Amino acid sequence: MIAKVRRLSQNQERMFEIDSYLKNAVTEIEQTLFSVLPTKNDCPAVLAEAVSHAVKTGGKRLRPTLCLAAAEACGVERHCAIMPACALELLHSYTLVHDDLPCMDNDLTRRGQPTVHAKYGEAIAVLAGDALLTLAFETLARTHVKNEGVLAALLRQLSHAGGATGVIGGQVEDILYADAATPEQIHYVFEHKTAALFKAAATMGALCADAPPHSLKELAAYGLHLGFAFQIVDDILDAEQAVADTKPELSCLDIMSTDDARVWAGEHTRQAVEALNKLPGDTTALEQLAEMMLKRIY
Amino acid sequence: MIAKVRRLSQNQERMFEIDSYLKNAVTEIEQTLFSVLPTKNDCPAVLAEAVSHAVKTGGKRLRPTLCLAAAEACGVERHCAIMPACALELLHSYTLVHDDLPCMDNDLTRRGQPTVHAKYGEAIAVLAGDALLTLAFETLARTHVKNEGVLAALLRQLSHAGGATGVIGGQVEDILYADAATPEQIHYVFEHKTAALFKAAATMGALCADAPPHSLKELAAYGLHLGFAFQIVDDILDAEQAVADTKPELSCLDIMSTDDARVWAGEHTRQAVEALNKLPGDTTALEQLAEMMLKRIY
Repeated sequence: MIAKVRRLSQNQERMFEIDSYLKNAVTEIEQTLFSVLPTKNDCPAVLAEAVSHAVKTGGKRLRPTLCLAAAEACGVERHCAIMPACALELLHSYTLVHDDLPCMDNDLTRRGQPTVHAKYGEAIAVLAGDALLTLAFETLARTHVKNEGVLAALLRQLSHAGGATGVIGGQVEDILYADAATPEQIHYVFEHKTAALFKAAATMGALCADAPPHSLKELAAYGLHLGFAFQIVDDILDAEQAVADTKPELSCLDIMSTDDARVWAGEHTRQAVEALNKLPGDTTALEQLAEMMLKRIY
Repeated sequence: MIAKVRRLSQNQERMFEIDSYLKNAVTEIEQTLFSVLPTKNDCPAVLAEAVSHAVKTGGKRLRPTLCLAAAEACGVERHCAIMPACALELLHSYTLVHDDLPCMDNDLTRRGQPTVHAKYGEAIAVLAGDALLTLAFETLARTHVKNEGVLAALLRQLSHAGGATGVIGGQVEDILYADAATPEQIHYVFEHKTAALFKAAATMGALCADAPPHSLKELAAYGLHLGFAFQIVDDILDAEQAVADTKPELSCLDIMSTDDARVWAGEHTRQAVEALNKLPGDTTALEQLAEMMLKRIY
């Protein structure tokens, strides 16, 4: 009985720590993220508003937080990775704007707010997404790099994970197979649409720390497994919150039970945490991020 | 009479030179351009096809040619600038795919071929455009740079000219003011939607040559004026070829006569060529490109 109470209390303490870590990281990220957005002095006012609306309507900022925490796990101050972190969030934001379009998921609300096309029209939404994607790379160019190869490596990571070979390829298969997907197709979509950007986030943090190849590899593995766990939990949460008239979406629950999905997510989380063993810096944040993402309820 | 014949023959000789130069440059550009495109081994087959369709259906390859010729004008082999040149063409290609969408210009054909959305549907067209834009930056990362600051500078040029501050801002105003534009709005659209990328193309060629600041400035001025001349001539040609049921498009002919537009284009061409005076390398190709673009009939 006493042992059980102590475990509970340790858990509560750990939850508090990661909550506070996340809060600080999000504040740090949003300060820089909002500062790089174009204003009406830089471009037409409606475009500045649409871009700002897309970025400022919430979001957990998981990918940039992961990037900062990966830099720390490689032994440098997390602020070294702030520009790549913001680039990742800008790229993620554009994917949401384009995914919400009438020709894609046709969503009118996101996080309780109107989507960009619902508020500004379809043409402005396409262009605001394009502007966010371009701004991701403009922001990446502002990274203070330790040596000359780092910017090229960051650029390769972000463009490969964000491109036809990553997020976009995943979205195409997601559209093609929403009605009935095989296990292989679900694996492809999870790996490319979701895990690729988590993997890039962790790797980019390590690149900012000028980490050696084995650390890059370990963080890439961590990010990949974390991305899988995140998407599996997302599918479970979506199913719990789904309303009757929701359109069909590709989900791992089409090929397995909720219990099996929970086991699968737990296994990816275990593999993610295991990959952290040999890193030189403090990996507490990365460990707790993985645990929190497995247990999240929204 | 003899003098006149000699002038004609000189003109014919010069036309031949630039034609041959362009033909060689386009061959060189397309060889690399087509080699960086994703195949069905890299991403879903329909995405690879749509991306390839967007890039391979012709085009004059003016922006990449300009980039190569600018590198030459700064005294290096034009091949030094091949990756930035291809990045420019990939970015230009994506703008055409998204501009053609139903929510934008709603064009079903381009250069005698079906547009990407006409052939592959709207969702794939949005995603193929996104993939081309991302690939532009992935290709830029493959530039062999002479010193560590060059890649960051190239990245800044391409993202600034391609972003909300450039092409996308210009496209937004183009949509907003298509029905009735003021001279200031026409100037804004010409500068941002068209001239910004010409300016970036010339500057990026110079960056690949590690050119000094004054050469970068001269080539930026050349590119900017060339872009204005190009867009003015485009409006004149569009008006000559327009059919009765064409939708309204922003055009400088809304605020001036065709004769005045020709004078305006001539003035920008003169200023473009004048900016080349002090460059160290061979500027013949850049001069003839400017003259050819002023006199083009398609």
